Amino acid sequence: MQVAMIGDKIVPLAELEPIYSDRGIYFGDGVYEVVRSYDGKIFALEEHLQRFARNLSAIEIVSMDIDQIRSRIKKAFDAAGISNAKVYFHITRGSAPRSHTWEADLKPNFFLTVTELPDDTEEKSKGITVSTHPDWRWKRCDIKSLNLLANVLARVDAAKRGCAEAILVDDAGLITEGAGSAFFAVFGQRLRTAPLTANILPSITRKFVIEAGKNIGLEIVEKSLTPQQAGDADELFIAVTTKDIVPVVKFDGKVIGAGKPGRYTKLLMQEFCSFTL
Amino acid sequence: MQVAMIGDKIVPLAELEPIYSDRGIYFGDGVYEVVRSYDGKIFALEEHLQRFARNLSAIEIVSMDIDQIRSRIKKAFDAAGISNAKVYFHITRGSAPRSHTWEADLKPNFFLTVTELPDDTEEKSKGITVSTHPDWRWKRCDIKSLNLLANVLARVDAAKRGCAEAILVDDAGLITEGAGSAFFAVFGQRLRTAPLTANILPSITRKFVIEAGKNIGLEIVEKSLTPQQAGDADELFIAVTTKDIVPVVKFDGKVIGAGKPGRYTKLLMQEFCSFTL
Repeated sequence: MQVAMIGDKIVPLAELEPIYSDRGIYFGDGVYEVVRSYDGKIFALEEHLQRFARNLSAIEIVSMDIDQIRSRIKKAFDAAGISNAKVYFHITRGSAPRSHTWEADLKPNFFLTVTELPDDTEEKSKGITVSTHPDWRWKRCDIKSLNLLANVLARVDAAKRGCAEAILVDDAGLITEGAGSAFFAVFGQRLRTAPLTANILPSITRKFVIEAGKNIGLEIVEKSLTPQQAGDADELFIAVTTKDIVPVVKFDGKVIGAGKPGRYTKLLMQEFCSFTL
Repeated sequence: MQVAMIGDKIVPLAELEPIYSDRGIYFGDGVYEVVRSYDGKIFALEEHLQRFARNLSAIEIVSMDIDQIRSRIKKAFDAAGISNAKVYFHITRGSAPRSHTWEADLKPNFFLTVTELPDDTEEKSKGITVSTHPDWRWKRCDIKSLNLLANVLARVDAAKRGCAEAILVDDAGLITEGAGSAFFAVFGQRLRTAPLTANILPSITRKFVIEAGKNIGLEIVEKSLTPQQAGDADELFIAVTTKDIVPVVKFDGKVIGAGKPGRYTKLLMQEFCSFTL
């Protein structure tokens, strides 16, 4: 008799709950999104849904309907009634006996959480410290997949150094992005970030930061930075859905600017805030 | 109230079953092994357990006891009573609210299945066809982790081409290994395979194939191949725990040797067989 074992407990395979054979666990075979709300309003939901649809398509999960996903998100968000909420959702290819290939009729699994966002006032006002880590991720980081072990290991390495984020550096010695964020530098009146390639997630927050940069008169330069160049920047910050812009005041131990959030970073934060009203 | 949603169903987050917040799903944050039995005897269990322990340590899952894992495997294998069985097992870092970093007291999750191995007589006697695919995997393929989406996408691409396995080719144009197997070529009396690096899984089957090669008098060459070189080989085969050696008779559409399993491949299969008695 074919069996499964969960911890110490043996169960007949035929009686195993489908979640245990989710391809999300076996292979990380799924894609995810994170959106947040500001004062009861989900920000940039359509942009996130569009990216999600692209990612589903990129890994050939074809049977999901974006309208259905949107209505599920709204239903759960309304049920939670949390004003500043983080909404995480993923779709995996489905539950099936472990095999790299899949059957055409496999039904995807949808999962979502709505949680309260922690207070980020202090890190946004004081700034955070970051450290670099080799970019060990796969070659399709443009796909927001559940294969995130490289990100986890980089972030934990940063945490051990007392840092809040890991900034990933590729084999060519160039910064790609943060383990869970986009990365920006300000030099004079130029706002610089890596260009979008297969090794960069097309971050929604990045897009709004660039828009904010244009609005406040910064010149946008999409060109990768070395860690040395980042350390010499006037200002640094990361951008991530759950916190929008967070100033970086120390990079690999080197104090950036005056060691506190820079002038343009603060202007960008203000400008970003206007998008969310 | 914080909530989760599974498919269409909303549940309070506090009542969510832990398996839904397994870090295996969120991040692929775990490692796995596959062992098989031949006629009621698990092959090379200690080698697999040693590698598993190394992998747990590589991703800093520290609280698992290999003796306990061994006894669980044996208990489940005995309960199943399947003579030619595939035993899959993984350990994830545990279940927790989604966050890249983890709490020190997080308890790992163990999961295992014992299933019947499908009959592989035909593919072993006739050989399989394979096709190449870019190696999109992360940079730590020496760790047998649950981040396998690149392998899945490569294998599915191969399947669409009517091939049983994808042979991965890195940015330098060199073959690393198969999506789920090691890859070998025979030139004259030389047995050639890629050397073990951070981008190659230290395959247990590979180790036994090399031993078998030495036993039958082949010279072992650990040097990467280009697809062109592979296409020009006298013989090709893949090696994988569940099937040991499987001859490859067509590579990217090119017939290898006489289009049937080669002389040394068959000798290696015989020799490998002697290890499993």
